[in-house]
Amino acid sequence: MVEYYLGADAGGTGLKYALTDSDGSLLHHGEVITDPTSSKKTIARLAIEVAEKMAPTVQVGKGPFANLQAVGLACAGIVNPNSGNLGRSPNLLGWEGNNLKRILANEFSDKPTVVTNDVNGALYGEYRLGAGRDCENLVMIALGTGVGGGILLNGELLTGAHHGAAEIGHMVLDPSGPTCTCGGVGCLEAWAGSVAILKQARLLARVENQDTALALLVAEKGDSLSPHHLSQLAEDGDAASRALFTEVGHRLGCAIGNLVNLLDPEKIIIGGGVAQAGDLILDSCRGIVPQLVLAEEARHVPIVQAELGPLSAARGAASLARESVIGG
Amino acid sequence: MVEYYLGADAGGTGLKYALTDSDGSLLHHGEVITDPTSSKKTIARLAIEVAEKMAPTVQVGKGPFANLQAVGLACAGIVNPNSGNLGRSPNLLGWEGNNLKRILANEFSDKPTVVTNDVNGALYGEYRLGAGRDCENLVMIALGTGVGGGILLNGELLTGAHHGAAEIGHMVLDPSGPTCTCGGVGCLEAWAGSVAILKQARLLARVENQDTALALLVAEKGDSLSPHHLSQLAEDGDAASRALFTEVGHRLGCAIGNLVNLLDPEKIIIGGGVAQAGDLILDSCRGIVPQLVLAEEARHVPIVQAELGPLSAARGAASLARESVIGG
Repeated sequence: MVEYYLGADAGGTGLKYALTDSDGSLLHHGEVITDPTSSKKTIARLAIEVAEKMAPTVQVGKGPFANLQAVGLACAGIVNPNSGNLGRSPNLLGWEGNNLKRILANEFSDKPTVVTNDVNGALYGEYRLGAGRDCENLVMIALGTGVGGGILLNGELLTGAHHGAAEIGHMVLDPSGPTCTCGGVGCLEAWAGSVAILKQARLLARVENQDTALALLVAEKGDSLSPHHLSQLAEDGDAASRALFTEVGHRLGCAIGNLVNLLDPEKIIIGGGVAQAGDLILDSCRGIVPQLVLAEEARHVPIVQAELGPLSAARGAASLARESVIGG
Repeated sequence: MVEYYLGADAGGTGLKYALTDSDGSLLHHGEVITDPTSSKKTIARLAIEVAEKMAPTVQVGKGPFANLQAVGLACAGIVNPNSGNLGRSPNLLGWEGNNLKRILANEFSDKPTVVTNDVNGALYGEYRLGAGRDCENLVMIALGTGVGGGILLNGELLTGAHHGAAEIGHMVLDPSGPTCTCGGVGCLEAWAGSVAILKQARLLARVENQDTALALLVAEKGDSLSPHHLSQLAEDGDAASRALFTEVGHRLGCAIGNLVNLLDPEKIIIGGGVAQAGDLILDSCRGIVPQLVLAEEARHVPIVQAELGPLSAARGAASLARESVIGG
């Protein structure tokens, strides 16, 4: 009998899931649509789909989840992994205040459950299966719409006394910097999240000559403009968009300098959609970090791209679920 | 028979020590002169003085350290607590590269030893016996000549993968800020260490009218000017020196905002000589922190003064020594 572990990652539009075996190998994966007004409806959808996937392996007469050992859910927002409560969650407003552990247990026949923050889930996935698998002390920075963070120390996720730790995106780097979505000024997210990058690209397009490649791209793509479009332009040699990513990398490096001086991790993992710009960002980032780190031995901390892609948080949640029942 | 535990704190000019019983109560304390060119000579001096203090309790025929259970040494600089090696140590240049555990064992009849960084020692002292004794997750910021830091998570000191963690003084707060002693720009230490405070006071005295209270104080004290003189002037109502401490508190608060967003500790402890300025610094510090912290529950983290005074690192080192042999 195959023992299944389920990990899921609830975002504002979709909930990705991964079914793994007891070695963490991926058996099935998929996505259901998130109902941002109801965690219960979304998780019920997940349960139906997962039951279908596992049905061929279930003996007649046993319940649909007979082979499921544990369930993990990663969720954007402030997650209390002990109680299972979701606090502030800008992308899942209708889920705020819900007890996700209880809802998972209801929908999955009282199987053991774990819940975690989405970037913590992604970091745990990279730790067990991806870019961090040879380390116990890691920092992850996820460059998405905003900028999220995760910190792993001695193989344990750092959540903090009030589940408010690892908000790396809101480290203030420059009090005369741009305004951030959080209302603060000069946070890392105000340079390195995709909202900030697109805003900066549009600003450059407005102030520059209207027939530059960047201005033409911004005009052509309109509201569908993405960091990926900009990184393609940069790869093609456009100086303005290259400079934009260089600046993102520089600011990211400033944040990493502070992080290394505080935590001295073994490795820094950069994930999220914006990280696909790769060396366009990482070259300038890697250039500044050694200048900022005090301890000589800590100066050349590897700064690497995440390896697991969009399923990282779901696979990390599956790993956490598995370890909650069979140990690490 | 009284069981003794020895903790010591090696600074650039003096080595303070504390002898405690198995409850951590202070039995004796004192100070020997540091020889900054020789850790061996300094620790030999300590051994002679400690043997004298314990002599009345030692049975005839037993060695001088018969009642000593373990020895802990806190030392400024980058300390490897596993190997016992001291790395970079600006105040103890002649000690760099020494194996402090081996030297302690040689001078103290092969008793069990522990070594730690000085601010980590002070933090551990505050954790066990002082301002942090009800918590397991603490950050300490020591405002001395420079600015040191310590981080305690789940009751364990965070030292990092290369013993380079908790360098809170070199968090960059503003890339257009003043130059720091480390060669960087806009580090916390460039505002909040006593070197920075005195520099700023002398600058203000020069640019201001020469008969202001601050200018007169600076002229009168010359090279002996200390942060304590400035805080006395501020307590007497002098606006310029008050503004100077307000700025120190503001920058300290910016650093704490970043720290809380990263670590979400239960309490922040401010120690070191400059911290004696108390509310002159802490009022503005406490004012800015809640504006910078993202997680609502983490916003009102208590920011308190250290309680143990100049013996904190020696007492913390004694606690670490005690726990290395009898458990926490």
